[in-house]
Amino acid sequence: MTPDQLVRHFIKLIETKDLESALLLLDEKCEYDNVPMRKVFGPEGVREGLAPFLASCSEIDWEIHHQTSSGDATSGVVMNERTDRFKMGDRWVEVPLMGIFTIANGKITLWRDYFDMAMFQKAISG
Amino acid sequence: MTPDQLVRHFIKLIETKDLESALLLLDEKCEYDNVPMRKVFGPEGVREGLAPFLASCSEIDWEIHHQTSSGDATSGVVMNERTDRFKMGDRWVEVPLMGIFTIANGKITLWRDYFDMAMFQKAISG
Repeated sequence: MTPDQLVRHFIKLIETKDLESALLLLDEKCEYDNVPMRKVFGPEGVREGLAPFLASCSEIDWEIHHQTSSGDATSGVVMNERTDRFKMGDRWVEVPLMGIFTIANGKITLWRDYFDMAMFQKAISG
Repeated sequence: MTPDQLVRHFIKLIETKDLESALLLLDEKCEYDNVPMRKVFGPEGVREGLAPFLASCSEIDWEIHHQTSSGDATSGVVMNERTDRFKMGDRWVEVPLMGIFTIANGKITLWRDYFDMAMFQKAISG
């Protein structure tokens, strides 16, 4: 898979809530950084960070508006502009953001999302 | 210039505070969207939005950590991860962010920056 394909596949797995398959695409030392919140490390850190959140959503739809990349699966960079949507109860919560992923040896070594925390909190609280 | 070169040139002009030359790279109908703040339109809107801010800084240093792009000068997309630094008084203020630019017919038609407003306000207030 190209870096572009790898990130699209990763996001598709998150959307289907198949977290365990998604974690297999992460490097053992990967960094997952939600810039205004916190960062966690390794597939285990990502599991602990994401599992409770995914469990609170009945549906997930992360729309990729644009995605660009450079390099290859050995050493690549992918960036995207997205709207991440989460169905909580009977309501869709959405947050506009941009994300950057770095790839090394076919695995994701960095996943960093930039968004406004107040917009996210406002969306969550409705 | 490629879309990548055009955006790097635009940012270099901002860093040298040559706003008038930077505005010449913008499409007449361009959108400049600071996601958690507001959006303005056209070179005139960008001038009104940026000129007072640039005037309040003695130095500007926008470091591009990563930049990826697709397309060409006719129709292109550029994304970057940056740390935007502004020297205000005797102090450097910095904000981590990602930006997306779309290019059409050799001009920038969209410039949208994603960042956390609270982090920016905290950096400004010191």
